[in-house]
Formats: sequence, C-alpha cells, structure tokens
Amino acid sequence: MPPITPVDAPLAGPIGKRRWAIAEGYIPDGSTGEGPEFESHETLCILNAGEQPARVRVTLFFADRDPAGPYGIDVPPRRTVHVRFNHFENPPVPRGLTYASVVESDVPIVCQHTRLDSRQAELALLSTIAFSEG
Amino acid sequence: MPPITPVDAPLAGPIGKRRWAIAEGYIPDGSTGEGPEFESHETLCILNAGEQPARVRVTLFFADRDPAGPYGIDVPPRRTVHVRFNHFENPPVPRGLTYASVVESDVPIVCQHTRLDSRQAELALLSTIAFSEG
Amino acid sequence: MPPITPVDAPLAGPIGKRRWAIAEGYIPDGSTGEGPEFESHETLCILNAGEQPARVRVTLFFADRDPAGPYGIDVPPRRTVHVRFNHFENPPVPRGLTYASVVESDVPIVCQHTRLDSRQAELALLSTIAFSEG
Amino acid sequence: MPPITPVDAPLAGPIGKRRWAIAEGYIPDGSTGEGPEFESHETLCILNAGEQPARVRVTLFFADRDPAGPYGIDVPPRRTVHVRFNHFENPPVPRGLTYASVVESDVPIVCQHTRLDSRQAELALLSTIAFSEG
Repeated sequence: MPPITPVDAPLAGPIGKRRWAIAEGYIPDGSTGEGPEFESHETLCILNAGEQPARVRVTLFFADRDPAGPYGIDVPPRRTVHVRFNHFENPPVPRGLTYASVVESDVPIVCQHTRLDSRQAELALLSTIAFSEG
Repeated sequence: MPPITPVDAPLAGPIGKRRWAIAEGYIPDGSTGEGPEFESHETLCILNAGEQPARVRVTLFFADRDPAGPYGIDVPPRRTVHVRFNHFENPPVPRGLTYASVVESDVPIVCQHTRLDSRQAELALLSTIAFSEG
Repeated sequence: MPPITPVDAPLAGPIGKRRWAIAEGYIPDGSTGEGPEFESHETLCILNAGEQPARVRVTLFFADRDPAGPYGIDVPPRRTVHVRFNHFENPPVPRGLTYASVVESDVPIVCQHTRLDSRQAELALLSTIAFSEG
Repeated sequence: MPPITPVDAPLAGPIGKRRWAIAEGYIPDGSTGEGPEFESHETLCILNAGEQPARVRVTLFFADRDPAGPYGIDVPPRRTVHVRFNHFENPPVPRGLTYASVVESDVPIVCQHTRLDSRQAELALLSTIAFSEG
C-alpha cells in the first residue's frame, strides 16, 4: 500500500445529529496499573466538525434516583473533546453504579462512548457509537 | 479542561425508539474472579428518558427451539434499568447457547447490550448499540 | 429488582432490514485455550424474527482478490443462527487476512458481528451492529 | 449445521453512505508482543462493494490544534481496504493524544473503526460501526 498522505482537497465540514443517548454506563470501582491512562474510566467522545461552537449538555439517568445535570461542555468549532465521566462534579458520577446519559447540542455533533476496565491486571475495553436523532 | 459541572438549562427529555433487536447473545458457561460483578454475564441496558413509565417486553430467539417470553420489565419514568439475562426466570436463559433478543416498549426507549466474559483470568468486554426501528 | 419472568403478551414479530454490511473482518491466525469456544474466530449473528424462512447470502470482499460467494445460509422462521466465518468452505476464509462482508436476505433480518481473539493467553472480544439499509 | 458454501446467486452490489464520522480516536503509546500485528494501533476499515473506484478523504480533528488532511485513500471497486491510522504521514497521527475523524467518499462505502491496545501483556480490542449520513 502507498503511504497515506494529505491530498489537495477541502477538509470535511459539519456532520452529525443534535441528540444522542447512551444506555450503558458504569465506572468500575477499582483499578490496576499506573497513572490516569490505566485508571478504570468511561469516556464520552464528542466531535464538532462544524464552524460554530457546540454548547453540549449531558443529562445523567440512574436506576434509583432522579436525573442529574445537565452538565455543560463547550466544544470549540473544528475540535473533538473526549471527557471522562469520572471528572464530572457537583455531583460526581458514583463508582460501581449503573447509569445512562443523554447528550444534547445546539449544533450537529457525533458521540461515542468507551469504557476501560482495569479492575484486573489486564485491561478490557468496550466502545460503541451512541444512538442519535434530530 | 475546566471542571464539568451542571449548568442552568433544562434536563433532557424523551429519546429513542419502540422496537430494538440484538442478534448476538451468549452467556459464557464459566467464570473466574470473585463476586457477582466478575461473573460472566450479559446485560440489557434500557434508558427511559421520558415522563411515562415504559412497559418493556423481551422476546428471546434460539437456534433450535421456539422463542421464549415475552419477559416483562417495567422501567419507571426518568430512569435506566440494567438487567442481566442471567436473571431471567421461567425459563432461564441457557448458559453456553446462542440466542438473540427483541425488545419492545410502549414508549420510546434506548437499548444497549454488553457482555462480560470472565472464563479466563482476565475479563473481556463487548458492547454495542442495538438495532432500532419504529 | 423483582424477578424477570414471562408476562401475558404476544411474542415479538419481524424486525430488521434486508441488506447489511460489515467492513471489519479478520480471523486471527493462532489461538490459545482449549476447545472450539476458545479458538480465535469471527461470528456472524443473524436473527430472523419473522414467520417466513430467510434465504441469506453472504458475499466476501478482500483487499487484493475478487469477491467470493455468495455463501448461502438458511435461517428458519423465528430462529437465530450464529455462524463462524471460520466454517465457510469452497473457498474458506483465509486466516490473518483482512476482509469485509455484505449480507443479503429476502426477508428482514438483524445482523451483528463478533470477534474472539485468543492469540494471547487471555482472550479479547469485539462486537458491533452491522450497517443496514433497504 | 450443514457446511456453508457458495450458492448459485449474484454477488452483492454497492451499499453504504458517502459521509462517515468516528468520534473516538486514540493510538495507545506503547505496545507489548512481537510483530506489527501486536503493535497498539487503530484501524479504519473501508468497504467499497460497488463497481466504481472510491476516492476517500479522511479529515482528522484534535482537541487543541487545527484539523489535518484530508488524507487520500483510493479503494478499488469490489475491494476492502483496512488502513492503520499509525501509517498516516505528513503529519503522522500523534500517539497518546485524542482525535476524531470524518471520512468522505465520492461513492457509497461502509466504515468501521477498531483499536487493538497491547500496552499490557494481554491485548484488548474495541470496535464500532461509524456514524453515517448522506
């Protein structure tokens, strides 16, 4: 295969939807390995490929309590932001409890959800595109 | 990155579809590790972000026998419920056999499917959004 | 949570699409662990939730050779069939080479793709819903 | 189950969309295991099931810098190409940094994204279908 290099063509423009949902959510309570990259965590990946800033709001749903949020995340134009649910504050996301999330934006974005589970010595990964509409 | 905290905006409202399908299904027969969180299992994650209770029905399909169910799961308004296929009863889901599932609800929901496989010393994970329509 | 048991309601009916595609495909060349369940493999999960038999055709695409197939798989009504790409014959799917697949059916079905990689002592898993249309 | 062999039917034709997005992107910085197949990497799987060549353009988005590309990849008719983001050049994809990608094609294609993480002794995998439109 030839090397993969830039070609003379325009960069991609906006893509996505304004509403996304992730039914799975669980930050494992416990970690092995050194440093933040091996801490058990869940990440929300947001891509804003457009020219306008994205004002993103994340609502969290639980099994036995009322929803929390919406947490605010600003994604600048032409940028991607990968945030850990571990870093949400006031209130934080409880460890070892199931939750779900709905992500809303004022401009089209794309969302994906990933978990790294390092409770055991060798890490495990899962990821999926979120459900979208609108 | 600044801390991710709640902002003054409304919580997310209903999102999803009424019919979902998961073609993959397999509860590994065997586990290592201690406690229910490390038992090999498959989870159905259901998010009901709306104001009405969701009456959810799960039909199981198999390779060599007639479908089972529908199993009933009630998801309260503004809640998420993560249920293990391991906990279905009358009949239970057989271990080590392939199956598939169709999830139906009277209000819009979002579904995701996750497996934790702990047959070997270090767990493995898979997850995907389910197929949706309607 | 109360036990999850069958309720008095009709079983789910047909769901899905007639054309599916999986861009990822790779049967790892090598395995550890005992027995067929720990052999490195890729599985195509097909759900036919309807009352008519599904005549399914799988075409394989490669990097450097012409497509192969279509391989025929019959999925009875109200059944799921999980087949390993490892078991395709005339020709078989080469190990350690990349491929992709398109799945076509005469009735609506749902498809999912899973890999178990056991080249190292502790297995790894991936799975995703396939792309669908039509 | 009977052997899965070719049947007398036409091969599958074109399928897919022209615009795809992957919000997750991260090439782990570090590897264990021998040879390129165990190097930590991310793969973009592209299927072109149609009769026309696909001229594919990949734009990369980052957290703190301007987008890069578009990188050019030609996918011949009736072929699949699986390229590693590790092999992009001028500039290369930075290791250990988050990114996202938008894939555009002049004909319908199907895209999937996979990561193999071998920073620890036993590899982990994730994969998901990309978001599509158009």
